[in-house]
Amino acid sequence: MLHLETQSPESPMFQSTTMAVLVIGGAEDKVHGREILQTFWFRSGGANATIAIIPSASREPALLGERYQQIFEEMGAKYVKVLDIRDRAQGEDPYFQQYIEECSGVFLTGGDQLRLCGLLADTPLMERIRQRVQLGEISLAGTSAGAAVMGHHMIAGGSSGESPNRALVDMAMGLGIIPEMIVDQHFHNRNRMARLLSALSNHPERLGIGIDEDTCALFERDGLIRVVGQGTVTIVDGREMSYTNQKEVGPSDPLSLHNLRLHILSHGDCYHLHQNQPIAKVSGSLP
Amino acid sequence: MLHLETQSPESPMFQSTTMAVLVIGGAEDKVHGREILQTFWFRSGGANATIAIIPSASREPALLGERYQQIFEEMGAKYVKVLDIRDRAQGEDPYFQQYIEECSGVFLTGGDQLRLCGLLADTPLMERIRQRVQLGEISLAGTSAGAAVMGHHMIAGGSSGESPNRALVDMAMGLGIIPEMIVDQHFHNRNRMARLLSALSNHPERLGIGIDEDTCALFERDGLIRVVGQGTVTIVDGREMSYTNQKEVGPSDPLSLHNLRLHILSHGDCYHLHQNQPIAKVSGSLP
Repeated sequence: MLHLETQSPESPMFQSTTMAVLVIGGAEDKVHGREILQTFWFRSGGANATIAIIPSASREPALLGERYQQIFEEMGAKYVKVLDIRDRAQGEDPYFQQYIEECSGVFLTGGDQLRLCGLLADTPLMERIRQRVQLGEISLAGTSAGAAVMGHHMIAGGSSGESPNRALVDMAMGLGIIPEMIVDQHFHNRNRMARLLSALSNHPERLGIGIDEDTCALFERDGLIRVVGQGTVTIVDGREMSYTNQKEVGPSDPLSLHNLRLHILSHGDCYHLHQNQPIAKVSGSLP
Repeated sequence: MLHLETQSPESPMFQSTTMAVLVIGGAEDKVHGREILQTFWFRSGGANATIAIIPSASREPALLGERYQQIFEEMGAKYVKVLDIRDRAQGEDPYFQQYIEECSGVFLTGGDQLRLCGLLADTPLMERIRQRVQLGEISLAGTSAGAAVMGHHMIAGGSSGESPNRALVDMAMGLGIIPEMIVDQHFHNRNRMARLLSALSNHPERLGIGIDEDTCALFERDGLIRVVGQGTVTIVDGREMSYTNQKEVGPSDPLSLHNLRLHILSHGDCYHLHQNQPIAKVSGSLP
């Protein structure tokens, strides 16, 4: 495995094997550079990784699980298993639970975020995954639907092409891995700014994070978010919001949201969750 | 004309007959309440208004001009003329120039903003219109393409569904009525946030103003912007921007823009251009 030394997705300056949470905007490169998937593989231990793929968001879990399995095996991961959970009872399966104890990385595929939460939320398996993530023992990645579930509040659906309004977005409970954020994915690709703003109007204390396709917001354990990939990560910070009419208007009425802070971050940029500040890419510090 | 007393689009508290610039996001109601067009008519003098309609952005100027003429006549305007300018030489037409001297309101229709600027920019007629607007002698309204031309820099075209990038937007010179802003129209309806952000990356000293359909940003002479209509006015303020990679990246590369301020304003909200601050709707102060 010379791969790590010659094509490491992270430069020596930032090189780190610490566990991370990777929130991926969907449609990540699975064929060419595979930068994001390789970053996950690397953060899960690289050649020593033991990876669990949970394809439960998908209606074709076997096919999709197999595809990711092949990708991570091609990268050199020794142990990759698909936990094809199609029933909540499987969240108590001793074999699956044992594999989660042994693994170093968990990958949640795309599909339908309501389906994923319906199958996983509050199961012993999911509770153990969350616990191991919080302890920094494993890396967790989710793409598309697998990204949407990361917050406490989750965007379950919605539409675009309208002024921000409450009816533009359907909210549900997520898996709460990083509770303080509301994630939207395929973000600029599917024109989801208005729906993220609509979601935030009811939860201004949360951080809105819109992630474009083939783009990843990588959450380090110290509160730093790194941007990896081809698109942008949009951060809408409503914590200084001075006014919204959200409680006063009807569900289809246009919303007011005053004094939001907006950051568009691209590859190599960071954002410090605790300081609420973006950090520009240090020239040459990342490939 | 009981209309003014019973259905005034502005309450007594804010009632004003002073001239204003109305920047309309397109597709304004022409049939039912006609709130925005009625506000223009009222700000042009109401029953005493003398209105010039310039339909030159459109490829069907006669039809479109006639439609607006009929609307303003139905409201009770005594003098409404269509200045059907199809050639730059008409920008020196003495008859048109005389009408502009006598009018109290000028209305620019939708169509193609490049066509409108090509026909009007730097003509004596347009210079006189600009001068009279600056002196507060006439009201000026522009819808869709007629709104796009209001700034010094103008969005001539672009697309959506991508991460903000320089190639997402085509810029040109506008008519410079309110030079400090870059206008985008049909804003959330056509998902134009990414293109407005892309435009701003090169002009962070300008204020980005995205106006939804059937919505108007009404610029008072004292620097106050009032929101009238059914959608939102989005203000993106890049004047505190701490970083952009705009000069460093290729035309299709994703942009970074750090520390923008974002305001979503709805009907009755205001924004103070000089103080850079939104003002929430005073409950009950506007219909």
